[in-house]
Amino acid sequence: MTPGQTGTSSTAQAQKSNVLSVDAMGGDNGPATVVAGLSAFLTQAPDARVILHGPETELAPLVAKHNLADRVTIHDAQDVVKMTDKPSHVLRNGKGTSMWSAIEAVRNGEAAVAISCGNTGGLMAMSMLRLRKADGVNRPAIACLWPSRNKQGFNVMLDAGADIRADQDDLLTYALMGASYARNAFDLKRPRVGLLNVGVEEHKGRAELKVAHELIGSATGKGDFEYVGFVEGGDLPSDRVDVIVTDGFTGNVALKTGEGTANLITELMRKAFLSNPIATLGALLARRSINKLSKSIDPRRVNGGVFLGLNKTVIKSHGGADATGIAAALQLGYQLAQSEFSDKLAARVASAAALAQDAIQEGEAAKAAQDNE
Amino acid sequence: MTPGQTGTSSTAQAQKSNVLSVDAMGGDNGPATVVAGLSAFLTQAPDARVILHGPETELAPLVAKHNLADRVTIHDAQDVVKMTDKPSHVLRNGKGTSMWSAIEAVRNGEAAVAISCGNTGGLMAMSMLRLRKADGVNRPAIACLWPSRNKQGFNVMLDAGADIRADQDDLLTYALMGASYARNAFDLKRPRVGLLNVGVEEHKGRAELKVAHELIGSATGKGDFEYVGFVEGGDLPSDRVDVIVTDGFTGNVALKTGEGTANLITELMRKAFLSNPIATLGALLARRSINKLSKSIDPRRVNGGVFLGLNKTVIKSHGGADATGIAAALQLGYQLAQSEFSDKLAARVASAAALAQDAIQEGEAAKAAQDNE
Repeated sequence: MTPGQTGTSSTAQAQKSNVLSVDAMGGDNGPATVVAGLSAFLTQAPDARVILHGPETELAPLVAKHNLADRVTIHDAQDVVKMTDKPSHVLRNGKGTSMWSAIEAVRNGEAAVAISCGNTGGLMAMSMLRLRKADGVNRPAIACLWPSRNKQGFNVMLDAGADIRADQDDLLTYALMGASYARNAFDLKRPRVGLLNVGVEEHKGRAELKVAHELIGSATGKGDFEYVGFVEGGDLPSDRVDVIVTDGFTGNVALKTGEGTANLITELMRKAFLSNPIATLGALLARRSINKLSKSIDPRRVNGGVFLGLNKTVIKSHGGADATGIAAALQLGYQLAQSEFSDKLAARVASAAALAQDAIQEGEAAKAAQDNE
Repeated sequence: MTPGQTGTSSTAQAQKSNVLSVDAMGGDNGPATVVAGLSAFLTQAPDARVILHGPETELAPLVAKHNLADRVTIHDAQDVVKMTDKPSHVLRNGKGTSMWSAIEAVRNGEAAVAISCGNTGGLMAMSMLRLRKADGVNRPAIACLWPSRNKQGFNVMLDAGADIRADQDDLLTYALMGASYARNAFDLKRPRVGLLNVGVEEHKGRAELKVAHELIGSATGKGDFEYVGFVEGGDLPSDRVDVIVTDGFTGNVALKTGEGTANLITELMRKAFLSNPIATLGALLARRSINKLSKSIDPRRVNGGVFLGLNKTVIKSHGGADATGIAAALQLGYQLAQSEFSDKLAARVASAAALAQDAIQEGEAAKAAQDNE
């Protein structure tokens, strides 16, 4: 290999972390919305490049309309994963879809991060098949950012809906993965982890939560995090924790409940300010502060669930995301790509998963010892 | 019995529906807060009377301070159920507590509704022991009101945390009880019921949800409600439904998540308006609309979970309720007492529970028939 070739390869490597792989199809609002979001994102990130996956005849005019042809490469894929497709169907019939193509570009190293607003179950199943679970991970999880009173402005919550089940061992793995994510994303030395329950008292909750409580509590040293114990729904936006661990059923309901509540309040706020001329004048005077507030509580700004526990990074955007939401998910993906988060996390998770196995075995050994006493 | 005696008895009966039984102890903020809430409530409801339960030496000065001695009767009870007491402990040792005394006053007909801000598990266990479950109810549930876009301004959600488990039969009973409550509380002919899940597609969710989906769908005729199918967390404040059915674990997390989100936004709004003098001036001009808005999203206003599925009405106030929250719970209890909701609901629930049993048996029969085909 000549020095010239090395240079080229190194440039290619450097460029790779600037490339996002974007599934144009499968969202509720169609590819026009995805490309509009793409355009907004690319304006903010002048060095970024995108590989866009979907039917070329449909995408080319949209890309041309936004003048993005020099920064967006289209990978033609005729099929689309529908929101109603079951994961098993997606695995059997997904090969010609834009979602498959988007994951493939990450798998073969053309792009650093894949982003899709399609069917969550299908995206996770396909990602697990093609990118494989990281060493020692049983169930990958979706981590989302939750607006909070913390100094970083967000908490990490997982699982936001990758899997409706999670046993005690999965919950321990989530704690370790969530702590790794928070450490990388927020630059926290020892993230504080809480386990979501219906009360903070030790006797409350389902049986697997009580066991997970013990397991997580005994893994803090090796996992390099603090464990604050059980937390409640009201603690999701609090500064008591940085990471909230729960199963994907509860996490998904909580996430959508929080978004729904924020949307309702924003709507009521708009109505209140339009209810009479003096209120409208007041709102005009306070409009800068109100806009700042609206922005800080807008669920679209934190759009993008990160799949944790795979060998590459995949981001699930909200199915109903508009252009603002798509742009936010792309921005998140770009940040993660730039920081080489994927590689760091895979290493972190692999070692964390090994630690989890140790903790589980230690827990079992301790229990056996206790039972024999 | 002389006509005079009949008259007295009838007056006593009419007065009973004006009497609330209030546990002064067990809340996070102590009896002074309960009595302050009591005072605010009694000012708004001039015909109401209250029996207050707790240590007389502690309560008498508080009642005197608020000048309530002519409208509040104290029932001395020295013991207090602590927030950390397990329900089994409460059942064994609860007899001398203010909570037990508050339930007893409803049991023996001195008051129409009991209200406590104490330990939820203890209150439910004691209520089940002393007031008994209504005919055909396996697990009673806690129904809460959720601010919504509906014309009545609220949806009913249950179970908000009475029991962390709920199987398919329980979920069907919740649907029937929730529909009864919505019909009575909101004067709706055919309330719309939804089942909380992680997606609206039929294949999503846990096994028991899929069965409950079938059972509830086949009970709409007899139960006199509409079934809209699966709903998501974002639908809790929506006008798609009037009643949302879920297990007590998920419901409790959702409730506290919604409250936490509303509190965070209110806090951010206050900060935004104080961030600079022009914003503060704007807020002053718009203050009426802002106050109205703050009121409509204030979780304290909808404080009070109603226990459904018992023979009498018990209301659980938020443990951390302040005087405003206590007053709201008392107001809710008073409305229910005035409308003789307890008797109506017991009848409704008894017949609904019978219907539920029919639907379950029909479902089983249909399944057996199908299996034999």
